[in-house]
Parts: sequence; C-alpha cells; structure tokens
Amino acid sequence: MPTKAELQRLRSLRDKKHRETAGLFVVEGEKVVGELLAAGFGFEEIHATADWPGAATHRLTPEEMAKASHFPTPSSVLAVGRIIRRPLPPTGLARGLTLLLDGVQDPGNVGTLLRIADWFALDRVVLSPDSADLFSQKVINASMGSFARMTVHTAEPASALAGLPAATPVLGCDLTGADVHTLEPRRDAVIVIGSEGRGLSAATKPLITRYVTIPRYGGAESLNAAVAAAIVCDNLRRVTA
Amino acid sequence: MPTKAELQRLRSLRDKKHRETAGLFVVEGEKVVGELLAAGFGFEEIHATADWPGAATHRLTPEEMAKASHFPTPSSVLAVGRIIRRPLPPTGLARGLTLLLDGVQDPGNVGTLLRIADWFALDRVVLSPDSADLFSQKVINASMGSFARMTVHTAEPASALAGLPAATPVLGCDLTGADVHTLEPRRDAVIVIGSEGRGLSAATKPLITRYVTIPRYGGAESLNAAVAAAIVCDNLRRVTA
Repeated sequence: MPTKAELQRLRSLRDKKHRETAGLFVVEGEKVVGELLAAGFGFEEIHATADWPGAATHRLTPEEMAKASHFPTPSSVLAVGRIIRRPLPPTGLARGLTLLLDGVQDPGNVGTLLRIADWFALDRVVLSPDSADLFSQKVINASMGSFARMTVHTAEPASALAGLPAATPVLGCDLTGADVHTLEPRRDAVIVIGSEGRGLSAATKPLITRYVTIPRYGGAESLNAAVAAAIVCDNLRRVTA
Repeated sequence: MPTKAELQRLRSLRDKKHRETAGLFVVEGEKVVGELLAAGFGFEEIHATADWPGAATHRLTPEEMAKASHFPTPSSVLAVGRIIRRPLPPTGLARGLTLLLDGVQDPGNVGTLLRIADWFALDRVVLSPDSADLFSQKVINASMGSFARMTVHTAEPASALAGLPAATPVLGCDLTGADVHTLEPRRDAVIVIGSEGRGLSAATKPLITRYVTIPRYGGAESLNAAVAAAIVCDNLRRVTA
C-alpha cells in the first residue's frame, strides 16, 4: 500500500520544478499511456487501479489514484518516466532532415509538431530551451505517441546551426521567402519554426540560409506554426522521397 | 450606468443556450475584438472600460466589467454580435472551392480551419450542425480574425453534397486514397474533413467521389484534421491558382 508521501510525490511530478529535481515526469490516462507503451516507451513505474487492463508496477485503489492524480476524474493509470534530454548527435545536424523549434511555446503546438515530424519521418527534432517543456503532459498528449518515436534533442538553435556545410540548407519560414513549391530535392536540411508570437529569434535569423513562404491567396495574416511546418515537410518530401 | 441585470445578461451570453435564445454572441479581449473590427465585422454593442482605445457603445467601470466578464482577469472590451447562420447559397456547392467540416468538434480545430480556408481563399466553409459552435469564443479566437472574413454556411453535409455535378469532385481525406500530390487542376471542388475521432460520417461517405491521402513516411498514425486540410489546400492551390 502506498504511503501518503508516495502519493504526494506522484502528484507533485506534474509540477515542472519537482519533476526536474526528481528527473522524472508523469503522464496520466489510458489513451496516452497506451500510445507510449505501444510505441515501446519504457516507463520507470506504472501505477494503476484494477480497471487498467495492462501491466503495472504498483496497484492503487481508486481513492489512492484520486490522491496521486491531477484529473478531476482520475483515469485508471498514471505512469512515471525518466527525463532524458539528449544533446546534439556528434555529427550535428549536417545529415538528414531536422525540424528545429525556436521558441515554440504552446505545448499543443510542440506536440503536434512532433507528430508531424514523425509522420514525415524526419530524422530528429531539436527543441530550444525556451520552447514548451517536452516532458509536460500537454506536449506528450498532443504528440499522439510520437513523443516515444521521435528522437528529440535539446540545444540552443544558434549553436545547433553553427558550422553546417553548405549542402545542408537552413530553411526559415516567413512571409517573404521563396515559394515553398520551388524547393529542390534535399536529403539534408534543417527546417526552423519560430515562436507563435515573435517568429524566429534574433540569434537564429543570421543562420537561415534560405527563407521559404507558403503562397497566400486570401486574407489571413499567417498560418499556425504546426500547419506551416507540415506544408513545408509535405513539399520537401514530395521532391526528396 | 448598466443595471445588474444588464451585466448578468452579458455574462450569460457565454452560455450556448442563452446566446441561442438571444440570437447574440459575445467575445472578450482586446486582441480578438481588434481582429474582428479590423476585418470589418459589425458588432451590435461594444462594452469597454476607459483602457480600451477604440470606439464603444457602452462604457463600463472595471468593477462592472468584472461582473460581465468570464475572464479571471477581465480585459478592457467585451463585444456583442448577432448570430447569423447562413443557409447554403442558391447555387449550392457546385461552384468554387468549399471546405466542409463534417463533425469537427474541437473549437480550436474549427477556428484553425477557418484561418486555413481564409489563407487559401476558399470560397466558403460549410459547418455541419454537429461541429463545434461557430459563435463560441474558442472558435472565434482560434480563427485569428478569419471568422469575420470567411463566408460560413451551416448545413447537413449529406444535403449539401447531394446533386453536385460531376465536374465538382467531393474530396475526402483518409489513409488509403490517391496521393494528394496527384491532384489535377480543379476550379470547383469540395474538401470534406471528418471528426477528429471517427473520421467522415456514415451519411457523408457515400457522397465522396474521390479519396485523397497525404503520403506518410514515418510512424504517426494520423495527422491533425487542420494540418491535413492545409496540406490538401496547398496542393489544390498549387495546381489551380
């Protein structure tokens, strides 16, 4: 039987400060835990009531789950994973296709962008430290399991983009670049997506080697960051796949 | 000075039942009210505190605004608009490009889809009655002003799609259709987007004349409804614009 302190510990992991101290994150809900397990994610602990049909490391009563959970109506499962922030690979971003998120702050957008990177089989996602926290439940939920399938690195965009060979273009999305339909085939490229409010950061802008834009026909001033990234990926895959 | 009943009336318009009875909807916040005004939307009433730099029909004190507002921290403006649900145009969907939302229930998705339809200058959006309510603040916020620029009709998809000429294909997005990159030029077409959970409705499926799919390269099982719609629009505009 879990102690009161143990239930409080689980509950506290929803708080970023506490999860950084513990080096652990928590996700709740049959759907998201099921998606991560199906994608092969190895949890440290799985706390579940009798209603959870899968394996569990700890069994809780519904009353205990209510104390550990952040949900008004607790689900049957709460899983704890280890926080691992991968530094850049030794070869950097020179090879393959990278999606670099430069201060994307909405957790739903970050999760949707992981899902898009996974759909288009990009080689990796790089998350700037000022983007939404990868280990928040909202990011993981919105990724629909892609959290467990994508390789995500955490790095400052400017250092990640420094020293790339000329054969690896750094594509920035804005409203005045080249038509995205004119992208030529590229096996190696970095697609940079800026923040929802301010766009690309001042440190990143000088490192963009080519701006691309999605042709606009109507009155909207912009497209959502995830929508824009998906259209760029579709066009890049169209010519490189 | 507004009466207590008047402030309660404004507050009650956030509730769908009350706004249907009154035939009025309400939006709060400088950003969204500013976007709709910039797009030429004609409000019935604009209630504002002294902090609102624009025109207002009624002035409120901050204390009065707090009673009318649903926000924990009220903004300086709350605007009331008339609910108008347009039936289909007399020519139906035969001419031009239509985005038909068949049970899209997330208000953020519906708003984002209006923004996408606006960006790609589609001629209209048709919203099924079981989609998220067009006049909810979440839909209007997510549309980023496109709520005021797009022509939106409300209709049952099956009746909207009945009797279309063969020259107006009805495109359904699914995972087994023709590659979206093979779309041929079309001046007239309907793009149908199904609900996030169950996809296209049983009543709509027999009326689809062509299924299209976005090529997948990786592990994600699906794309978000708005992301998929945007990629289809980009491909359709690429060949028709």
